[in-house]
Amino acid sequence: MSRIGVFGGMGPLATVDFLDKLVKLTPASRDQDHLPVIVASLPHVHDRSSAILGHGRDPLPQLLAGIDTLNRADVGVIVIPCNSSHHWFDQMSRSSRAPVLHIARSCVAAISSPAGSRVAIFATRGTLASGFYQRELVGRGMDFMTPESDGAQIQVDACIREVKAGRTELGAEHLTQACQHLVRCGVTTLIMGCTEIPMASRYADVSGLVLIDSTLELARASVAFAMARGWNRTGWDS
Amino acid sequence: MSRIGVFGGMGPLATVDFLDKLVKLTPASRDQDHLPVIVASLPHVHDRSSAILGHGRDPLPQLLAGIDTLNRADVGVIVIPCNSSHHWFDQMSRSSRAPVLHIARSCVAAISSPAGSRVAIFATRGTLASGFYQRELVGRGMDFMTPESDGAQIQVDACIREVKAGRTELGAEHLTQACQHLVRCGVTTLIMGCTEIPMASRYADVSGLVLIDSTLELARASVAFAMARGWNRTGWDS
Repeated sequence: MSRIGVFGGMGPLATVDFLDKLVKLTPASRDQDHLPVIVASLPHVHDRSSAILGHGRDPLPQLLAGIDTLNRADVGVIVIPCNSSHHWFDQMSRSSRAPVLHIARSCVAAISSPAGSRVAIFATRGTLASGFYQRELVGRGMDFMTPESDGAQIQVDACIREVKAGRTELGAEHLTQACQHLVRCGVTTLIMGCTEIPMASRYADVSGLVLIDSTLELARASVAFAMARGWNRTGWDS
Repeated sequence: MSRIGVFGGMGPLATVDFLDKLVKLTPASRDQDHLPVIVASLPHVHDRSSAILGHGRDPLPQLLAGIDTLNRADVGVIVIPCNSSHHWFDQMSRSSRAPVLHIARSCVAAISSPAGSRVAIFATRGTLASGFYQRELVGRGMDFMTPESDGAQIQVDACIREVKAGRTELGAEHLTQACQHLVRCGVTTLIMGCTEIPMASRYADVSGLVLIDSTLELARASVAFAMARGWNRTGWDS
């Protein structure tokens, strides 16, 4: 049970980015110091954002099948580096023997000194419609804005789509435009609430913003969970 | 059965590099065009190179358990982005329902126009002692050299060790020195026969050498195997 289960493939490159961060966050000087991980990268899950918005097929049966695959591989915790899929978090958690960590909770917990800061959320339209980021922020008494009501969401959509198509630098151009809009609106902190966005942010002009990377925060939560239980030391049979 | 099984963690960062190459080699413009992958990243496998050299614990029971984990997750093929572990290739293949692709065969098949070229192999001392790369090259009538008998192997050892410890750029300095030695010896083609070496090669001076990247060639073989069977189209339930 001393293995991290990663339900990935949504998208595949974001899963690679998550694993890269997980490995680099683990204190290790040789292979045997690292954490055992089982990854189910299952990219054929129906589009999550479309389903939340009421068009497109229901991905829930596939999401539950992915959770089952990881449980059958004896994982001790499950993480899902796809924000939109957290619309179905309660159903996935209930069907899982292993606890599931929530990407938005990890992400919002990473925002320091909210006083005086203005937070924005960049995510898929499905994630924003689902509202779980907004609920986390309200629960912690934080003010926020989303770009839904203005043209910036069009840039966020394009950023995500280009990264999924392997055109990360083109995605970064859209992200730069969306970020410049935020700065003009007085936003100081940006939650990158879609795991494609952090890949584009490496090539984007994000000056003036404190970035909260949902992929990185989920990786930090995963490493902390596993290290606290000594999964780096227990060997793989235990 | 339409999933690629990746037995990784040897080392963990090399597994991330393999997955990155696999995703980028897959022709896709959206998540659903990609290939389903199950990864067992199990870094606690005993050191392969030490075991081949006769000191250190036998990793074979752990290797067979990893193969079993992937077969139980219904994979249709298994690849192992760790060269040294291929010392036990026959035992792993025999115990696996899914076929296992051989990293050295993929790698040697990628060497073009061997006439007039001088090939060298950089790998762990265990891989070189095992001799499977040498047998592949002899089988294809190719001449080769290994740095075992001279100081270059000390640099290769240091390169691999530094990458495993997360100090990739320091590893690259050792690789640069080892490569400069090869060029002075008249070598024209270098097989990077350890999956840590390609990560260092990005930061090394490898001018004068055609590089054959065992991680990349195994990823190419994996994508070709899966695409030929339509695993990008079959959905995940089939």
